[in-house]
Amino acid sequence: MMNNLTDINGLQPPGNDETIRAMSGLSSQPYKGTRDYYPEDKRVQNYIFETWRKVTESFGYEEYGAPTLEPLEIYVAKSGDELANQQTYSFTDRGGRIVAIRPEMTPSISRMVAARRQELAYPARLYSIANFMRYERPQRGREREFWQLNADIFGVDAIAAEAEIITMADQIMKAFGAKPGDYVIKINNRKLINYMMAQYLELSAEDAQLMVKLFDRKDKISETDFDDQAREILGANAVEGLPKIKGLMSAKSMADLPVELRNTEATSEVQELFTLLERAGVASAIFDITLMRGLDYYTGTVFEVFDTDPENSRSLFGGGRYDGLVGLFGAEPISAVGMAPGGTMIENFLTVHKLLPALDSTTDIYLVPLGDMLTAAGEIASELRVEGVNVELDITDRKLDKQIKTADKKNIPYVLFIGEEEVASKLYTLKNIATGDEQKLSIADVVKLIKG
Amino acid sequence: MMNNLTDINGLQPPGNDETIRAMSGLSSQPYKGTRDYYPEDKRVQNYIFETWRKVTESFGYEEYGAPTLEPLEIYVAKSGDELANQQTYSFTDRGGRIVAIRPEMTPSISRMVAARRQELAYPARLYSIANFMRYERPQRGREREFWQLNADIFGVDAIAAEAEIITMADQIMKAFGAKPGDYVIKINNRKLINYMMAQYLELSAEDAQLMVKLFDRKDKISETDFDDQAREILGANAVEGLPKIKGLMSAKSMADLPVELRNTEATSEVQELFTLLERAGVASAIFDITLMRGLDYYTGTVFEVFDTDPENSRSLFGGGRYDGLVGLFGAEPISAVGMAPGGTMIENFLTVHKLLPALDSTTDIYLVPLGDMLTAAGEIASELRVEGVNVELDITDRKLDKQIKTADKKNIPYVLFIGEEEVASKLYTLKNIATGDEQKLSIADVVKLIKG
Repeated sequence: MMNNLTDINGLQPPGNDETIRAMSGLSSQPYKGTRDYYPEDKRVQNYIFETWRKVTESFGYEEYGAPTLEPLEIYVAKSGDELANQQTYSFTDRGGRIVAIRPEMTPSISRMVAARRQELAYPARLYSIANFMRYERPQRGREREFWQLNADIFGVDAIAAEAEIITMADQIMKAFGAKPGDYVIKINNRKLINYMMAQYLELSAEDAQLMVKLFDRKDKISETDFDDQAREILGANAVEGLPKIKGLMSAKSMADLPVELRNTEATSEVQELFTLLERAGVASAIFDITLMRGLDYYTGTVFEVFDTDPENSRSLFGGGRYDGLVGLFGAEPISAVGMAPGGTMIENFLTVHKLLPALDSTTDIYLVPLGDMLTAAGEIASELRVEGVNVELDITDRKLDKQIKTADKKNIPYVLFIGEEEVASKLYTLKNIATGDEQKLSIADVVKLIKG
Repeated sequence: MMNNLTDINGLQPPGNDETIRAMSGLSSQPYKGTRDYYPEDKRVQNYIFETWRKVTESFGYEEYGAPTLEPLEIYVAKSGDELANQQTYSFTDRGGRIVAIRPEMTPSISRMVAARRQELAYPARLYSIANFMRYERPQRGREREFWQLNADIFGVDAIAAEAEIITMADQIMKAFGAKPGDYVIKINNRKLINYMMAQYLELSAEDAQLMVKLFDRKDKISETDFDDQAREILGANAVEGLPKIKGLMSAKSMADLPVELRNTEATSEVQELFTLLERAGVASAIFDITLMRGLDYYTGTVFEVFDTDPENSRSLFGGGRYDGLVGLFGAEPISAVGMAPGGTMIENFLTVHKLLPALDSTTDIYLVPLGDMLTAAGEIASELRVEGVNVELDITDRKLDKQIKTADKKNIPYVLFIGEEEVASKLYTLKNIATGDEQKLSIADVVKLIKG
């Protein structure tokens, strides 16, 4: 009835390392670029998820869920070529449909809003915590499978929408214990970028797109390489163009911008946004005209939260306004602003800044039956569980020290002993593993100690 | 810089229905067999997830996470041919690896335990809530993408392990409000099945496997079809074999079994399990020798929870002992027992038995600024959020009735009005949307009313 090991070996061609591995079984390693979350890792991830959830729900955002697979075409439409064509996990299903494991959430939630365009209550404030896959070279802070919070507001044209999203981004950083100097929120506006490219640098639409991509890469290449590539894009205009670009890159605020770029619709949007952010107590926001954001769907404000630590100096997450995306799904367009913090980026930030709290097990008590008290211990476990105490019962009949060691290894804070004497007196010995303290308590007092 | 609609149209060959759809945009429907969870759907899912989480954590199970993609070979090894070869979403990645979107969790968690065989604390009690995909014909209660709780205990040979898992299954049903007659837990044992097939029915290993699969299908085919197929498998032994099988199928308890099948190692395991379950207060467990469970990796106890409602009479979820799986990943084998309730099955059960509670939004208050009080309202929103109250602030400058209608549509229980008078008096009007009641409260009293 059951297969045996020879079936597995049969999967592998003979005579290489894979065969040797297969001889002793299947590999126990996770698929390249993905992670196994053991309880101690999952606790950290859950701490991050719960912090995200707490902040976004406090702003009235409601959770939704979307499928893991989507038609590939929804990414081809707007996410940009690199993401859609080179980084998706796409394949043809058994029914001939070309699908992709979602590499991001924005197209999915835009599709969902389009499908219920008439029925939803606006402004729709929506969030999800979900996993995504991109075929990239795995590196620190970048995995092929990763988790993100996505928080989006639909149906608000006013800059108040981006002010709210950026305030939430700031609140998320604060909820993780970040101090003002630990991060900075860089803000720009796609309309301003478009104006800068077309009017100020006088670039064609095609060259403008190349320049945007070059700006996006600017922190990853040398200044010489940047200059060379900028000259190539500028062509005949390089002599005046390059100094203009260098001037833009050194601007510390909107006041440093050349007069041609001020007093446009875009700059008044940026100014209003900074006024609203100041009013909301967001002190870490700065203007940066070189901030582009890689995705093609943004139409107005874009922002990115950066770690200021020199060892971890990188974009933590970002977002922006994308008013055109819902309209691609056959519905009337609807304005939208969103952001997407990633779990691994935040985890690195917390590690670098030493902000990760010590995280105990979700289990409160490890219950140790002494002698043949397993049945009595089982009844006490049930009694405690009814009161909301999480109890792991040892059912192994091992030596006492081994049972306590198990509790310690699992980061369970307390051990409760159930012996004949304890059952008779209805007073049980509770041991705090960290301090070694022991006290004799009734079940009611154990509940009180754990729950309150 | 941005693509436009003609790019999307370009994806489609001209002159068919797809083109017409593409002309007006991309489809807003989810991929076949998957579901979009809008907030009202996600609330139901979260209620199911939280109930699962509460019960499993109360037994000391700790959460883990595993990758969405696994090497296909881990399913080929043990899950059974249908699941591995016909139902997986498998494909070759850009690096030539043959991978599958996980169709179940058991092989993944077995792989993870094997990878840390030496480091883990035993018994390891582990749970996850995760999504899976199988390429099946979508039907009621069966979707191509679905969510499951997986709870498993590793490192316990004793029947106490299956007693604990089945007690948790029973507790989960009770936590959802199910009454004793609403469900039944059918229990069998693979060792007994093996003995029955080999010794009692005298089938070869190959014919035994065919008979197991036929028993698995027995509720989906007519009795005549069952008899015909059973005769075919039995061959020359059909004359005595078929009445034996019919006798087994009518057995209501172990006492009804023919004497040849009693007093084996398997039956003493079953008897011990029923003793432990009775002691743990599990009243819904019954013995059923025709219960097989489709997966190849089970080695001992198997069980399934069935809905008893005639309209929804079907297996809700199941589990069992699978002592051999960890050993396939190059580690010393380790005993394991687990179960995997599915979200859609539970949701159907709750619907049929009218057990789904009314679920409000996670948002407590919809904050309505009157006149030009948006800035003041923003400050009050912050004040409430700090106290743990979830507040959605209306930033749209719409008519009052439209704002209240939005709150109602979102199932937010309260509206709080912030007008000039309210700000001056520091007393704010709180309206209960369901009852229409209004009261004037300080912020502190609003917090008190919402939080406790």
